[in-house]
Amino acid sequence: MNKRGILTIISGFSGVGKGTLVKELMDKYDNYALSVSATTRDMRPGEEEGKSYFFLSIEDFENKIDNNELLEYAKYVNNYYGTPKQYVEDMLESGKDVLLEIEIQGMRQVKKIMPEALTIFIMPPTAETLKERLIGRNTETMEVIEARLRRAVEESQGIEEYDFILVNDNLEKSVDKLHQIIDECHCQSFRNKKFIEDIREGVKAFSEGE
Amino acid sequence: MNKRGILTIISGFSGVGKGTLVKELMDKYDNYALSVSATTRDMRPGEEEGKSYFFLSIEDFENKIDNNELLEYAKYVNNYYGTPKQYVEDMLESGKDVLLEIEIQGMRQVKKIMPEALTIFIMPPTAETLKERLIGRNTETMEVIEARLRRAVEESQGIEEYDFILVNDNLEKSVDKLHQIIDECHCQSFRNKKFIEDIREGVKAFSEGE
Repeated sequence: MNKRGILTIISGFSGVGKGTLVKELMDKYDNYALSVSATTRDMRPGEEEGKSYFFLSIEDFENKIDNNELLEYAKYVNNYYGTPKQYVEDMLESGKDVLLEIEIQGMRQVKKIMPEALTIFIMPPTAETLKERLIGRNTETMEVIEARLRRAVEESQGIEEYDFILVNDNLEKSVDKLHQIIDECHCQSFRNKKFIEDIREGVKAFSEGE
Repeated sequence: MNKRGILTIISGFSGVGKGTLVKELMDKYDNYALSVSATTRDMRPGEEEGKSYFFLSIEDFENKIDNNELLEYAKYVNNYYGTPKQYVEDMLESGKDVLLEIEIQGMRQVKKIMPEALTIFIMPPTAETLKERLIGRNTETMEVIEARLRRAVEESQGIEEYDFILVNDNLEKSVDKLHQIIDECHCQSFRNKKFIEDIREGVKAFSEGE
């Protein structure tokens, strides 16, 4: 069976609890690694190089873009954010399942480079639940709430492009379900080509009297 | 989330323990139904109409072929064997996950009609294990053993066409794993189109101030 880890891309509506899900998954099971992003923004107090982010100069970041060393990247305001390929590759090779929490544009970029990446979209149980989470405790201005709702509409456009959806109705259950989806995907045929070939060759050898 | 059952096609090497796996899965979990085949062969003592098989005349069977009422069929010696579509459809509609134990030729026929069917190939842990199971207790003639090995070589050709492989190394664990694979596949995006559309419409309605 395949020992290489699976790169799992996790997306979902803002406010749906993706971050908590990923954190709990990392805490509960030990076969996961979190992808560390690269950025050109300044380091903030409490952040650590190679843990919070890989902090790069704009020149270094643009070199990585030119050399195809990023799985995906985007520019927000004046800073780049992206996913260094090598770090993910090293973790996968060591057998870790790597979690990458990004938006759909990033997912599409990654899938072009690593079509075998597993993609999961986190869903609210109902649209009403999502609305309540976005509105929050009535401490936000209408402007903020409207911007969040518009964003949610945008985020809802590409859900069918993901392999799986996961309804986050109960944190503990959803963490286990997320783990199980990733775990079962290790049994996908296309991730086990070598094992299948070995069995086939073995059976063939026996039938030929070896 | 989707309530419709999943048609799961289970194939695998002869002697790998598919039948036992399916039986134990049915005994342990109550959301499964076994597809009942139709056949033109005579009923044998102890068999029951609609339980062991649907027993049909050759004319009735050929009518079903002509009317596209079978998911797949084949002729062995002088008898037809096949999978009636309506029975499977009724079980799926009632929410049962339907198990269908067939060979690769049948799988290919079913996938043409129901591309959403889930396909799982049961594997031995090693080629050596399979050889031991095929050789049995040294009570078989060389001729029988050679025929079995030749058949295994044939059976090994299309494994990559299946969605998942399941290594049957421990019956109890494999039964649970089989259940989990089928269970997780209920979260596949393409099986939840209506739910996704409902959430999208709901979010859109809120953002438009409804």
